[in-house]
Amino acid sequence: MNYSMIAYITGWVLKVEAAFLILPCIVALIYREEDVRAFLLSILICGGTGLILTRKRPRSTMFNIKEGYVTVALCWIVMSIMGALPFLFSGTITNPVDALFETVSGFTTTGASILTDVEVVSKCVLFWRSFTHWIGGMGVLVFLLTVLPMVGGSHMNLMKAESPGPSVSRLVPKVRSTAKILYEIYIAMTILQVILLLIGRMPLFDALTITFGTAGTGGFAILNDSLASYSTYIQVVVTIFMILFGVNFNVYFLILAKHVIQALKIEELWGYLGVIAAAILIITWDLRGIYDSIPEAMQQAAFQVASIITTTGYASTDFNLWPEVSRTVLVILMFIGACAGSTGGGIKVSRLIILCKTIRREMVQITHPKSVMKIKMDGKTVEDEVIQSTHVFMIAYLIIFTVSVLIVGIDGHDLITNFTAVAATFNNVGPGLELVGPVSNFSLFSDPVTLVLTFDMLAGRLEIFPLLILFMRSTWKKF
Amino acid sequence: MNYSMIAYITGWVLKVEAAFLILPCIVALIYREEDVRAFLLSILICGGTGLILTRKRPRSTMFNIKEGYVTVALCWIVMSIMGALPFLFSGTITNPVDALFETVSGFTTTGASILTDVEVVSKCVLFWRSFTHWIGGMGVLVFLLTVLPMVGGSHMNLMKAESPGPSVSRLVPKVRSTAKILYEIYIAMTILQVILLLIGRMPLFDALTITFGTAGTGGFAILNDSLASYSTYIQVVVTIFMILFGVNFNVYFLILAKHVIQALKIEELWGYLGVIAAAILIITWDLRGIYDSIPEAMQQAAFQVASIITTTGYASTDFNLWPEVSRTVLVILMFIGACAGSTGGGIKVSRLIILCKTIRREMVQITHPKSVMKIKMDGKTVEDEVIQSTHVFMIAYLIIFTVSVLIVGIDGHDLITNFTAVAATFNNVGPGLELVGPVSNFSLFSDPVTLVLTFDMLAGRLEIFPLLILFMRSTWKKF
Repeated sequence: MNYSMIAYITGWVLKVEAAFLILPCIVALIYREEDVRAFLLSILICGGTGLILTRKRPRSTMFNIKEGYVTVALCWIVMSIMGALPFLFSGTITNPVDALFETVSGFTTTGASILTDVEVVSKCVLFWRSFTHWIGGMGVLVFLLTVLPMVGGSHMNLMKAESPGPSVSRLVPKVRSTAKILYEIYIAMTILQVILLLIGRMPLFDALTITFGTAGTGGFAILNDSLASYSTYIQVVVTIFMILFGVNFNVYFLILAKHVIQALKIEELWGYLGVIAAAILIITWDLRGIYDSIPEAMQQAAFQVASIITTTGYASTDFNLWPEVSRTVLVILMFIGACAGSTGGGIKVSRLIILCKTIRREMVQITHPKSVMKIKMDGKTVEDEVIQSTHVFMIAYLIIFTVSVLIVGIDGHDLITNFTAVAATFNNVGPGLELVGPVSNFSLFSDPVTLVLTFDMLAGRLEIFPLLILFMRSTWKKF
Repeated sequence: MNYSMIAYITGWVLKVEAAFLILPCIVALIYREEDVRAFLLSILICGGTGLILTRKRPRSTMFNIKEGYVTVALCWIVMSIMGALPFLFSGTITNPVDALFETVSGFTTTGASILTDVEVVSKCVLFWRSFTHWIGGMGVLVFLLTVLPMVGGSHMNLMKAESPGPSVSRLVPKVRSTAKILYEIYIAMTILQVILLLIGRMPLFDALTITFGTAGTGGFAILNDSLASYSTYIQVVVTIFMILFGVNFNVYFLILAKHVIQALKIEELWGYLGVIAAAILIITWDLRGIYDSIPEAMQQAAFQVASIITTTGYASTDFNLWPEVSRTVLVILMFIGACAGSTGGGIKVSRLIILCKTIRREMVQITHPKSVMKIKMDGKTVEDEVIQSTHVFMIAYLIIFTVSVLIVGIDGHDLITNFTAVAATFNNVGPGLELVGPVSNFSLFSDPVTLVLTFDMLAGRLEIFPLLILFMRSTWKKF
């Protein structure tokens, strides 16, 4: 294990985080808030640790896929601990476990909150809280790749571990350039959304924080009713951008590179849009008697569907009170999740497409045992390795899910609360149903349960294996 | 497709079923019940159809695995339709959809009932209802194998399609002898349980019907409170036999063949017993304040755990009222299910063991990419084919499960009812929670939903693929 390189990268992540922490300081200065001190202290600790860890450049900057996984998992944990400091120092959250939950919820773009009243929180803390979504959405290590020089395959091994989806494709031969392109698209779309929200007369602070939450598919809002009190125009803009940020960024890259036809051939895109369309139709039909008009029902359905499938988690209404079919559809969407290579969470549409294709193959092989059938995706053969790891991902996913629901049960809440609390955190959605519904929050859980849900959020964002590998003995053994 | 052979076997299944229908006639004669007419008419229709279909011996008795799947699926459907006739003719159930549900629930050893009051039903109908469990438990085609002469691989292809578990092992070189041995063990254990129940002063009729339900891991009872009003002795005997019938029958065969050490090396046995022990301990702890004493809590926990993991579905108490941890454990047990090669349903312990091992392998392969690791079970390497079809089974399972929950949602009941109704039928358990809890029944669902649940029961019993293959176009295409 290249420990010095792992420490070095972790140090760099902390330095970047310290730099990001300057932004809420500026917000605090603008609004003349006392919480600026909490941020300055956090910058000192975070940046200081970062400087110490990066003092010595490691001799070898090479590292393999295992080290990539370990680094990513460790960085996310350390980054979350540091990111929780402002909440604690400012007194916004007094329980360290809760502060960690809130920060992990931010970085993993979950958006589940333990705050019972966000409207009393200072602007700079709210800004930081939403900004963690934006940082976590594209991934802080992917960001680091754009600035940190590394050797050969090392880049790829980090990117593989942090990027969601069954397989990572380089947009351009150089991983570093790929990371840069991704961030450029990300920033451009963020700016566009802010401008469109400002046109809708949204205050700048609201526009920024809500956009951070949309771009990262996070879901922290700055009002207790999430987005319910904003205008229909704003809700529609957010709906569209939620869907856009849930698309595989390869699509945008291909369009930018003028390969529009190739972009439109990406199966995941159509699967994703198809599920969204179907879900909106079912829910609109289910809500037809509840809202005054079909268009209103459809707008609400579209907002909620976009919010849940992209695992953002904003609410334009209390969907916990919707009828069962709609609630069931939303729960299913939590699991489906967005596209691979987007900022969204969940199982990912491309995984589900691969899984459906393997079922088809199995059936054909039963009926025609001699046939050999390759699974294809976007016209290319999917490697057996990818199929197998997709299968294993699903199994590990189910086991972690089941065990989590079981542990969360010790708090004695009802099954739907427990089930959707795990679904909402593990898939990085945010709100669930019943006691963790959109107008409620996660403050009801005991510390051990909160820690399990924190683990689930990290496991969901990093797609399980990086986190599990931390706990394997063989990871730490010398070979 | 060897249609004439498929028709021939289906005919034989119906003849066997007609023969089985004589038993409830005898019961009707003993108790002097009018419903004997319903059974005589059913025998006429069922046996008559059987005779017509078996009039002509097919030229070729060979058939491949695809035909095996199709035959099994068709036989189960036809057999269920015929088995529903006595319910309709006797007027016990007036809605044909409900009658089909009840019969499928019987044959698939689910034990979910649409009857609101079983105590008013005539003895002969109750006898038939419970007897369907016994027939379905070991499989009617496996029974047929013992009597019907067939060529070469044909036996195996039928057995593969009807027997539960990731792979079928022949106990002895000849499939026909394997089937015979299985039925001998099955009958011996059935007789033993009846005797033990009679010793506990249970009336013969009760002892027979309850034993049929235990042996097939079915769960139809003849009292409205299931087994709650029987003595502790009887409950303990049933607990033990439920666990015994959930064991892989290979274990018994090996013990009979004096290969005790080999029998004790079967990993699934220990996984199964381990899960049972863990579940009993957790639930006993959770119930410690609810029952008067720890032994009483443990006895109740043991009964319920045995009943649910073996997917029998008897109830000794209304476990729907238990605290959340216990309820959650029971729901998880519904999915785990019994051992492969037993009469129980669910995902099966051996599948879960294989799945856990593939996760381990994946993790090792991430950390040490060059290593090659074979998955072993009971000391033997598990073939890649079995692993792959286990994975695909899980995926298909999840998709059918999700779609079912969604469709069941249209009836507007709460999510837990919908979720556990599908879990209880798809895993062939019987009772779920809330509105389909142990003191409730499945009469609340509309006809379309009842049909979906009926499909789920069949899909669960036949382990999905035989049923799915019926709906594939390529199955019916000529090659």
